[in-house]
Amino acid sequence: MRLGKNKFLTPFRFILISYLIAMATFSILFYLPISTQDGIELTYSEALFTAVSAVSVTGLTVVNIADTFSGFGILVLSLAIQLGGIGIMTLGTFVWMILGKKIVLSQRMLIMVDHNQNTVAGLVSLMKGILVVALMIELVGALVLGTYYINYFDTVLEAYYQGAFGALSAFTNAGFDITGESLIPFADDYFVQLINILLIFGGAIGFPVLMELKEYFSKHNPNFRFSLFTKIAASSYLVVFLIGFVGLWLLEIGHFYEDMEWHRQLFFSLFNSATARSGGLATMDISNLGLASLLFLSGLMIIGASPSSVGGGIRTTTLAIMFLTIRSFALGRKDVKVFGREIHPEDRQKAFIVLSVFVFIWFLAVIVISSFERGNDIELMGIIFEVSSAFGTCGLSMGITSDLSLPSQSVLMILMSIGRVGLVAFLFSIRKEERKTYYKYPTERIIIG
Amino acid sequence: MRLGKNKFLTPFRFILISYLIAMATFSILFYLPISTQDGIELTYSEALFTAVSAVSVTGLTVVNIADTFSGFGILVLSLAIQLGGIGIMTLGTFVWMILGKKIVLSQRMLIMVDHNQNTVAGLVSLMKGILVVALMIELVGALVLGTYYINYFDTVLEAYYQGAFGALSAFTNAGFDITGESLIPFADDYFVQLINILLIFGGAIGFPVLMELKEYFSKHNPNFRFSLFTKIAASSYLVVFLIGFVGLWLLEIGHFYEDMEWHRQLFFSLFNSATARSGGLATMDISNLGLASLLFLSGLMIIGASPSSVGGGIRTTTLAIMFLTIRSFALGRKDVKVFGREIHPEDRQKAFIVLSVFVFIWFLAVIVISSFERGNDIELMGIIFEVSSAFGTCGLSMGITSDLSLPSQSVLMILMSIGRVGLVAFLFSIRKEERKTYYKYPTERIIIG
Ligand SMILES: [K+]
Ligand SMILES: [K+]
Repeated sequence: MRLGKNKFLTPFRFILISYLIAMATFSILFYLPISTQDGIELTYSEALFTAVSAVSVTGLTVVNIADTFSGFGILVLSLAIQLGGIGIMTLGTFVWMILGKKIVLSQRMLIMVDHNQNTVAGLVSLMKGILVVALMIELVGALVLGTYYINYFDTVLEAYYQGAFGALSAFTNAGFDITGESLIPFADDYFVQLINILLIFGGAIGFPVLMELKEYFSKHNPNFRFSLFTKIAASSYLVVFLIGFVGLWLLEIGHFYEDMEWHRQLFFSLFNSATARSGGLATMDISNLGLASLLFLSGLMIIGASPSSVGGGIRTTTLAIMFLTIRSFALGRKDVKVFGREIHPEDRQKAFIVLSVFVFIWFLAVIVISSFERGNDIELMGIIFEVSSAFGTCGLSMGITSDLSLPSQSVLMILMSIGRVGLVAFLFSIRKEERKTYYKYPTERIIIG
Repeated sequence: MRLGKNKFLTPFRFILISYLIAMATFSILFYLPISTQDGIELTYSEALFTAVSAVSVTGLTVVNIADTFSGFGILVLSLAIQLGGIGIMTLGTFVWMILGKKIVLSQRMLIMVDHNQNTVAGLVSLMKGILVVALMIELVGALVLGTYYINYFDTVLEAYYQGAFGALSAFTNAGFDITGESLIPFADDYFVQLINILLIFGGAIGFPVLMELKEYFSKHNPNFRFSLFTKIAASSYLVVFLIGFVGLWLLEIGHFYEDMEWHRQLFFSLFNSATARSGGLATMDISNLGLASLLFLSGLMIIGASPSSVGGGIRTTTLAIMFLTIRSFALGRKDVKVFGREIHPEDRQKAFIVLSVFVFIWFLAVIVISSFERGNDIELMGIIFEVSSAFGTCGLSMGITSDLSLPSQSVLMILMSIGRVGLVAFLFSIRKEERKTYYKYPTERIIIG
């Protein structure tokens, strides 16, 4: 199969289809009786929802994972998360490499597209690097959490089992838990929370950032400089994290934080700001927060993580480019400069298209679900929160996902799928072939806004 | 005063400041005891809210107009609406013309900016034309409604008084009423509703469209062709109207429309789709609709009317350009063509900036008001609806504006002001002077979305 030559099966479509096939396959695996605990039977729609949520590393659930799945089921879940998080394409091509097959360019293109890279150079080594770094981080996380968990769990085996799954779930930003109540048991254990925040950062800040950091610290290349992508992605990721932290603190002072020690306030704010950006793990019942905080969290979930990461949302670079473009406009400048580089006009346009399409689909989904749930006792805030969580592949929940009707859950499944593939890739996958136009019309200015 | 030479007082800033001065002046007029009925006293904040709502032709109220204001108060209100609707700049310059003063170019620039025109040519005649057309339409509307109202009201005088105010309020898309309950008394009178819909259209479709229609039908110029602006504004205005009509019908079939005759369903859908686009008059208690319809109406209010009209919102052309740009992208084209013309890249960028800034301010306002109203019994849907109504200068209400705290009402006042000035003009008014940059950085591509 030579993808590059296939007119229908463009790289973007191939990725979309791969994700869909993975979701279908895992839905069948979850549906097998061996995947569930004795006496528990899943409906097929529950199995499908779990599969979509796992492959898209979202973490929304319609069943309690710990009470439902068997050891085998958890293993299947781990596999789905790993595959979805680190990229079906990356793993697939890695298998090819191991099998000794020659990687054709079109195949390379796929990984490039899946992780949104703009140059094909050094792709195979990048891919190897991603896998090595991801597995290393997960291993270290599993060891640290597992060893520490010996204090918490009855057996050493159980401790490492929980640690391994916890590290996997945090680093892939999957947000699934096998404790039965996410990280709420560790609401006062700041060490566990810090490790989880670091793991979430690692997965969400973007693989290119990790690779360049590795390159930087290894000092192989004396001429090494960080790419514009890494500078923008890392700085905007952290700036939004800080804004989230301060915002949540301000919104809950005198409310949820009343009569609470300062360090608990600090860690609730820190953890929620970190987890909303795609992590999806929780140290508290989110629905205790006020309307304003819940909307603010929805905003953070919509912004999401960096491109080329395990996270979703409109992505940090989209936000950064929009902000820089608007700032340029406000300063009366025509071009957009940052870190001594110019932003390409096409990238600016792409960023605004991503936001507009995201807002449109988001709004449509909220209206459609409101319409489906008419007559049921579901609040608008809950719908907005779950839609933002699904579309941003975050997985935080006000706990209403399992109360929604099947049509509404289907909407969430579609949002998770598009959210994971990414809007740029999604738009490219439904896009017609690029074509040159050989005629031009006169340009006429019109009035805007 | 030579505006063109003044570095601080740019045309955009002059307009912003004029609106603010008008709002302050009218707040004092409303606050005068002579403006209210015997025994009724306004607080200053109520007077200010009424002034801001009137000058911005929004129509949100914290007091019932019919039960509060005297004949003099209603006259002041009519003046404020007329001034705000047809444009402070237009009227001001008209007064200058009558006084025989020479209109200097910088003065002309003001009107151009206020109505967003891109060419200075033919400006004075445009301005005269706007006034003549506006007053003619209002006069015809007043005569038709007034005469018809003789069946409804006790005296002929009262009928024409109601007709005149009704026509003014409908054409300027102000949405104020002196019936005490908007157009609800005419919920079954389809003639009154049709006239109101036509008046709302006339005000909201954009003055350039009206002027070009007049030119077209007068046949003075055999080479006349409609401008790209008129084609885009009129077609997108009508397309969104149709989508609104069909959408509302579909969302309420089997709910609010259950057991209702088809013609009542038809007219509720028609009128709500028309009035949401900046009109603000109501033939029913909007809060009887479901969540999905209320969100859908909020969307229509956010889209709003054409630029260079009495209406607000992100404006029809903004929506149209975004849609065309996204369609171009999906079809794999680099340029954006429509009606045999090319859209200027700068206009595309402006459209996306308007949407992004609108969404950002909208979201911020909803969060801030939710935070202010914490502990009060106000639902998120109500906040979203009033914020959309204020920012889109529509004036439809779920009836909670008077229940909001003063800080929240202040947020609504800010939204109405920015909404009326328009985001492009607002951004330009806070924008630094355009400056050329004489250095260039290398361009580096990054990953978006
Ligand atoms: K997640
Ligand atoms: K209005």
